[in-house]
Amino acid sequence: MSGAVYENPDLKRERSQCLFDKEEITNLIDGGKEKTKERRDLEEFIVCDEDLKDSVPIEYLSHADKYSAELRKACLLFKKLSNPSNGPAEVSTVALLSTGAGAITLKEGNPLALHYIMFLPSLMSMCTPEQQEKWLPKATSLQMIGTYAQTEMGHGTFLRGLETTATYDPTTKEFILESPSITAYKWWPGGLGQTTNYAIVMAQLFTHEKCEGIHPFLVQLRDEETHEPLPGISVGEIGPKLGFNTVNNGYLGFEKVRIPRDHLLMKHSQVLEDGTYIKPASTKLGYGAMVFVRVLVVRDVAVQLRKAVTIATRYSCVRHQSELKPGDPEPQILDYVAQQNKLFPPLAATFGFHFAANYVWDLYNSAREGIGKGDLHLMPDLHGLSCALKALSSSEASNFVEVLRQSCGGHGYMVCSNFPRIYSLVTAAETYEGENTVLWLQVAKYLIKTRMDKSGGKSVAYLIDSNLMNNKIVDLNNDSITNLFQRVAAGYVDLAIKKLEGYNRQGMAPHDAWNHSAIHLIKGAQAHARYVVADCFVRSIKEGKFSDPVRLILNQLCELLLTYWLVEHSGDFFMFADLSANQLFKLQSKYMELLGTIRTYAVNLVDSFDIRDEALDSVLGCWDGNAYQRLFDEASKSPLNKTSVHRESFEKYLKPLMKSNL
Amino acid sequence: MSGAVYENPDLKRERSQCLFDKEEITNLIDGGKEKTKERRDLEEFIVCDEDLKDSVPIEYLSHADKYSAELRKACLLFKKLSNPSNGPAEVSTVALLSTGAGAITLKEGNPLALHYIMFLPSLMSMCTPEQQEKWLPKATSLQMIGTYAQTEMGHGTFLRGLETTATYDPTTKEFILESPSITAYKWWPGGLGQTTNYAIVMAQLFTHEKCEGIHPFLVQLRDEETHEPLPGISVGEIGPKLGFNTVNNGYLGFEKVRIPRDHLLMKHSQVLEDGTYIKPASTKLGYGAMVFVRVLVVRDVAVQLRKAVTIATRYSCVRHQSELKPGDPEPQILDYVAQQNKLFPPLAATFGFHFAANYVWDLYNSAREGIGKGDLHLMPDLHGLSCALKALSSSEASNFVEVLRQSCGGHGYMVCSNFPRIYSLVTAAETYEGENTVLWLQVAKYLIKTRMDKSGGKSVAYLIDSNLMNNKIVDLNNDSITNLFQRVAAGYVDLAIKKLEGYNRQGMAPHDAWNHSAIHLIKGAQAHARYVVADCFVRSIKEGKFSDPVRLILNQLCELLLTYWLVEHSGDFFMFADLSANQLFKLQSKYMELLGTIRTYAVNLVDSFDIRDEALDSVLGCWDGNAYQRLFDEASKSPLNKTSVHRESFEKYLKPLMKSNL
Repeated sequence: MSGAVYENPDLKRERSQCLFDKEEITNLIDGGKEKTKERRDLEEFIVCDEDLKDSVPIEYLSHADKYSAELRKACLLFKKLSNPSNGPAEVSTVALLSTGAGAITLKEGNPLALHYIMFLPSLMSMCTPEQQEKWLPKATSLQMIGTYAQTEMGHGTFLRGLETTATYDPTTKEFILESPSITAYKWWPGGLGQTTNYAIVMAQLFTHEKCEGIHPFLVQLRDEETHEPLPGISVGEIGPKLGFNTVNNGYLGFEKVRIPRDHLLMKHSQVLEDGTYIKPASTKLGYGAMVFVRVLVVRDVAVQLRKAVTIATRYSCVRHQSELKPGDPEPQILDYVAQQNKLFPPLAATFGFHFAANYVWDLYNSAREGIGKGDLHLMPDLHGLSCALKALSSSEASNFVEVLRQSCGGHGYMVCSNFPRIYSLVTAAETYEGENTVLWLQVAKYLIKTRMDKSGGKSVAYLIDSNLMNNKIVDLNNDSITNLFQRVAAGYVDLAIKKLEGYNRQGMAPHDAWNHSAIHLIKGAQAHARYVVADCFVRSIKEGKFSDPVRLILNQLCELLLTYWLVEHSGDFFMFADLSANQLFKLQSKYMELLGTIRTYAVNLVDSFDIRDEALDSVLGCWDGNAYQRLFDEASKSPLNKTSVHRESFEKYLKPLMKSNL
Repeated sequence: MSGAVYENPDLKRERSQCLFDKEEITNLIDGGKEKTKERRDLEEFIVCDEDLKDSVPIEYLSHADKYSAELRKACLLFKKLSNPSNGPAEVSTVALLSTGAGAITLKEGNPLALHYIMFLPSLMSMCTPEQQEKWLPKATSLQMIGTYAQTEMGHGTFLRGLETTATYDPTTKEFILESPSITAYKWWPGGLGQTTNYAIVMAQLFTHEKCEGIHPFLVQLRDEETHEPLPGISVGEIGPKLGFNTVNNGYLGFEKVRIPRDHLLMKHSQVLEDGTYIKPASTKLGYGAMVFVRVLVVRDVAVQLRKAVTIATRYSCVRHQSELKPGDPEPQILDYVAQQNKLFPPLAATFGFHFAANYVWDLYNSAREGIGKGDLHLMPDLHGLSCALKALSSSEASNFVEVLRQSCGGHGYMVCSNFPRIYSLVTAAETYEGENTVLWLQVAKYLIKTRMDKSGGKSVAYLIDSNLMNNKIVDLNNDSITNLFQRVAAGYVDLAIKKLEGYNRQGMAPHDAWNHSAIHLIKGAQAHARYVVADCFVRSIKEGKFSDPVRLILNQLCELLLTYWLVEHSGDFFMFADLSANQLFKLQSKYMELLGTIRTYAVNLVDSFDIRDEALDSVLGCWDGNAYQRLFDEASKSPLNKTSVHRESFEKYLKPLMKSNL
């Protein structure tokens, strides 16, 4: 970024007028100066390594070659990082995976990721000390490479439906693993295809002819030397997907596969040699991991959304198109209000999701401390919040990313814009770790319970206030709009309760009544989730330490996001929050004003996200704004462009057709 | 579909209870019994041809191999069809392209498509008889393979911004083509990369040192024998995209490329030998092609949406998941109201878009007849309608397809579900042939003009009625809801006019005022488009000949779609159409009731779309419902699964890592 390199003049002009300290925002997002430094060091370490670069962009490779290319880099990365003299002083493996710095080199996912994200942590949390002693050294030294196999072809979110069985045979002191049908095949685990030689397999434990429910088993899948699948093991990869094509998602079936008794991970429950089953002390102990991953999803989604906003904002600054005033030169796209309307709500949302993710992260840590002391009272709120925020952030971010892609015109459709990949990563989060509709209904259950029982955690406390719906709101500002979201959530909850009671009086079974109320329940849960983000946003600005310019910016973004959501869902506010048409008109005007204000600093704000070009990976969003030259240079990497004529296809197909004199 | 083959029992049960004639719906969609037969014959002809099958699904191939594989089939297809003894009596080439029967074998697009869709038709409509005589024989016999090169890297929707120049040199009687900058490079034309040897190039015509605007030129790009690019021609492909990866989209730059004077397509304007420019008789004559393609887009989008609905509905019937009543077996997903809420609005929309597409198609044909007689009075309405319907159908269908994908859980994310490909095709239509935001603003201009001048075509006539906003609506049915959409459109139009006048009084320049009103203008145009679809849907049911059961079904679908749209945008109706909270509650109840009704025939309805498995191309949506077995069989086609160990990557990367004793 020195003075000598090219910088697009439109971007340069924006940057010469920055009225706030970009580094302050960078640190805010990273979580402090120290974290910013750590991240930059790690990124630098990866970017500078020539061995971690691709000779051909992976999108040109075949499915199998993509896997090989990425496995090469994944192996290299972990080997290098295991030697501290190679890298930054402290490297968090998790920071390397998923959306961390590792994504700079492994853009569509890492076939070894599940080993670190799920296999190792599960061994640590589910094994007895003896089991840990036996397996952890092999797992950390990568003689064992593992994954976590839970989801089956026919069974996802509903765990009790899983079909794989592990039946204890006291005569040999072994469990026999079996896939009783094709729908019982494990399906989706990352790395399972061709990469891992072990897996933690979730299966229905049968002993003394009784099913004791789902339990974790360590199962060897492949020979440690030859990598050949062991007898009775059917394993392979599941094929191409919308994204994550180098994660090596696999399938796994069992035909009478015997494993020793002590391959049941026995920290919480045991099966004795004679087959006696010992129950776990509490059934809620498995709970934490799921919550943890959902909290991570909210953070990941914010990371991806920041990328998309950065690309679209910079390209909108660089790109001149169409005309506003007849005869004038083509204006910057960024000056079109219709374009600002596409760019700035997601820009604001990145901050809303960021603050909400921080809040639930802190709550998670408090809850974990509590659990250590046997105090589980934070768990319901944590569960409700993590579901609500995961579902809201993933669904909103997916929609935003697509709007941002389209805001870049046709070029956003190109892989080298990076939008297709960003979308594939974000929309996947709508389904994994709890499908969103299922999560919304779980949130709704919590809301209904709170409103009816007049008791619940902090995030739903407002539902206990019986005066909530009578609060008159005169002045519309960030605080009062936050309250309006409460009223909408409560309004839908009350409506659902009324419906449920009505169905009940008609003699409808409770589960049918619940099913018939699903649409209202989901809308209530969504309004609640928006309230949570709004509340976190507003409180974080009030409570945080910021310079005056940054506080002003954050306040404006907060106001934009809240107004945007209100206008988008104005019908709800007419119904449940006494909104008047006049108030709505005023809000729309305010919204337009805010777009104009944010226009003045949008480029500098996305700069302050500090996403280096290698991580952004977009010809349209590059820091220097040299979008068109980069677009052209990227096309020149196509193997089809290596020769002036694509001989193979021309000689074989095209020439004979042209000569055939049709 | 004989009795001997497998049929999933859940699907079988639905099919045994069909209360309407599926063939009636099939014929309705095809446009008559005859058309159904033609389509089936053509599909059969393609499906039965072993040469048109893939040995490996193309998603496993490298980018370059995908191109070769599809070019092979494209050449074969056109060669075979040119010999009438090979195929059905009458084959429409257009039916073969894009989403037609050709898509069965060419799933991501045909590198020869633009030759037929744009090159040949443009030669026919833009050339003088002498030019046609010279070029048409070569083009129809495929010695010339051409494309249509208009869009440039830096210039899309706004034609006057195009940079490529064609400067007439009277001394040699040639035009000199030049790309004055990198943004002037042609970018996107299909087939341009490695396939075509000619192109119709749109360029700014300069003669006598004056720019006469954009004109079409026939330019030879490659040698007819060797296929080598000619001197001064820079040509290649643009690289991977979200979809359409076998269309061979290309780029094209000119450095002092000289072409003969008579390579200007001279039907409408001419340049004489001395360089004198002769203007066209009318500037509106180029108009028709754009309108035609937009009309086709509405149809294509409906085709793709029918596929997505078919897949999701069948799989929801087959798939059992989670629990409603504790202890009961896992219910069919189709019985969840939250699922019906995802499936049935798009199901209804396929019919809405179908009827709207028919309406604008008929209007297009009337307008063309008119133009032949010098009567242009239908053109403004045709332009407004084609813009509105293209923008509405592509944006709504894109959102619907993603909801439908997610309604299938994780498996919808797999390429073999066909959702990723369907989405890539549908969402592309949001950008090509006029970016949607640009189109909405053009529609809005037409609406504003109509409302202010009290004059406009049939589709906007309601805006001239000054009593529109005073109509009290008591009973909510399909007719009255249609009127409510009129009121919302008029409400936004009036609001925008008020704003524009306000800005004007403040002394704001008209183009700035227009820019500041963009958000209201777009919302008004969208409400208008929904009114148009609602109106077409309602009228088509009234005016068409249907059996009683089919009429009942169509009425229910129409009611569902209209109610869905109203509830989704209820804020607009509170603001502009005097909707009361009580009316909205009633509509929501009605909506829920309709979901339950449509549930009873949804499977039979999607069956009646008559999309054969080869065209549906989805393991989840196949007719027999054997989704899981097919999912598994499809994975077995992965080259990574061909051997029990992927030797190459294991020996090179994984084994050394495992042995390294980290």
